Amino acid sequence: MTPEAATGTVPRIRRAAVLGAGSWGTSFAKVLADAGREVSLWARRPEVVKVINADHRNPDYLPGIRLPENLVAVADPAEAMAGADVVVFAVPSQTLRANLTGWRPALPEDVTLVSLAKGVELGTLNRMSQVIAEVAGVADDRIAVLSGPNLAREIAEEQPTATVVACPDHQRAVDVQLACTSGYFRVYTNTDVVGAELGGAGKNVIALACGIAAGMGLGDNTRASLMTRGLAELGRLGVRLGADPLTFAGLAGMGDLVATCSSRLSRNRTFGEHLGRGESLAEAEAANHGQVAEGVKSCLSICELARRHQVDVPITDGVRQVCHEGLSASAMAKALVTRTPKPE
Amino acid sequence: MTPEAATGTVPRIRRAAVLGAGSWGTSFAKVLADAGREVSLWARRPEVVKVINADHRNPDYLPGIRLPENLVAVADPAEAMAGADVVVFAVPSQTLRANLTGWRPALPEDVTLVSLAKGVELGTLNRMSQVIAEVAGVADDRIAVLSGPNLAREIAEEQPTATVVACPDHQRAVDVQLACTSGYFRVYTNTDVVGAELGGAGKNVIALACGIAAGMGLGDNTRASLMTRGLAELGRLGVRLGADPLTFAGLAGMGDLVATCSSRLSRNRTFGEHLGRGESLAEAEAANHGQVAEGVKSCLSICELARRHQVDVPITDGVRQVCHEGLSASAMAKALVTRTPKPE
Repeated sequence: MTPEAATGTVPRIRRAAVLGAGSWGTSFAKVLADAGREVSLWARRPEVVKVINADHRNPDYLPGIRLPENLVAVADPAEAMAGADVVVFAVPSQTLRANLTGWRPALPEDVTLVSLAKGVELGTLNRMSQVIAEVAGVADDRIAVLSGPNLAREIAEEQPTATVVACPDHQRAVDVQLACTSGYFRVYTNTDVVGAELGGAGKNVIALACGIAAGMGLGDNTRASLMTRGLAELGRLGVRLGADPLTFAGLAGMGDLVATCSSRLSRNRTFGEHLGRGESLAEAEAANHGQVAEGVKSCLSICELARRHQVDVPITDGVRQVCHEGLSASAMAKALVTRTPKPE
Repeated sequence: MTPEAATGTVPRIRRAAVLGAGSWGTSFAKVLADAGREVSLWARRPEVVKVINADHRNPDYLPGIRLPENLVAVADPAEAMAGADVVVFAVPSQTLRANLTGWRPALPEDVTLVSLAKGVELGTLNRMSQVIAEVAGVADDRIAVLSGPNLAREIAEEQPTATVVACPDHQRAVDVQLACTSGYFRVYTNTDVVGAELGGAGKNVIALACGIAAGMGLGDNTRASLMTRGLAELGRLGVRLGADPLTFAGLAGMGDLVATCSSRLSRNRTFGEHLGRGESLAEAEAANHGQVAEGVKSCLSICELARRHQVDVPITDGVRQVCHEGLSASAMAKALVTRTPKPE
């Protein structure tokens, strides 16, 4: 049964623009196209536009994946957005503000804006939907975030998964849900944008903590405890910021975290393993081709957010101390286990 | 800082009896002994009693682990319980009723009873704390359950982990918390017994579902989606039975589930992989040394409980149909993904 048949409605989103043709942007454009939408995918590099339109593939990001015919790549973001009912932002979180500043004049009137970016902006400590509201000058209820256990490669392979689209305006969430529901992509709605975004931003720090534990030779109990209690502290912070604690138990919280911490490709986990084996941040960075993992930065902004709102985030803070203050992994482990006994 | 120093109290539990010397019973007896309690561990087989007392090890269940000197094994359950402040039940769930019937006369007055058993009793559909209340003839507020990401072997190796002790009487939960807190075992209290028990009973079915998906060749997204939505349906059932939905996001829910689904030793996962590759229940059973996995039985009792309380449990029901009605794994997957779109 198609979603249309199930609900007796005609989807209100016919044309979608996806801005950003990395692995997740391209996979999600394929999801929308497979669900029957006309999709324009903006890619920054002209050679990517060319190969997508000529060969229906994006070999740099999704080798071996055939893209549908109703997915068209364009080099001009304004052209991608023309006539779109929904505009999806799929650029890295720290570049969203700069990109969106350039795109703003071309945003269609009353379009629904969907963020795929995960993170807290350095400096401002803004969530991505806050950046969008500010830069695009639109009300919160036009902005949705999509998050869940969504490793791009597996979605491009059409492996079954679920996701959540969160928007203060329930009807817009339903519109996006209907626009991307297909035989392998199951979408749930939620109205809790804050919870969905904080789960996505915080998971990289918890994945880093899990990597540190793995590097110390610790097993499944420690990892599961870090994941559960890590999500609990994000939940506490979320509640202080207005989120629903149950969002953290859902697809954008637990679901995304479990997929990230399970993936052998998770850069945060691998990076943490180096730290857990006693290497310094600089050594771990060198082993990771000169790049720091996302969680190394996020732990700073989440700790700062927690400090401002007087919320205790012991795991995130432990990661921060290991990364930025030279605390040893074993001292972090000991400090976490021997805290004052508490109710759950 | 010891828990005593942290709370300024002297622990009220000095002597503990653990009934059942399998891997989890023995590991938890070690936890209590390492936390400073005098521990009597009852083992059914005299040779196990002998080797624990002579060599301080239990080679059948925990090879290579040295047990502490203040852990003494006994062959007589009444002797184990004499003078105990807490009695811990560590026998398989389906044998608890018969065992407890024999032990009842020897239970000390006003002792706290702690269940480590996970499951729903076949036939009665009772949770383990209900079996204990009925057979021991004690009030609910004397019964605690302990559950979390607690793979026995890793705890015996003193790898850091966390757990939750749930009891309607908060003070008793705190007593048990203080009695077993140590440098590697961090204990949280909770008052939600129903939620803690349902999480423990349901996780085997979800692990079976994850095994089925793995057997079909599906990856991390599908697994994380099954775990998250599986826990969500257990949470719905739990709420109907009086549980707090947040318990399912905690150590006895998500924590236990993540540890179980991650463990390479999980029999439910391995069993499910056979089913996911298209083998029949009989073939999977033959490959598993003639035993069915726990989740194969639990899915029946949980579905029956859900039916009585009119709660929708699509993943548990899918597992039941694959195990007991010959539904194919691919038909189960398709049915789950294409259900009517819903709010999270």
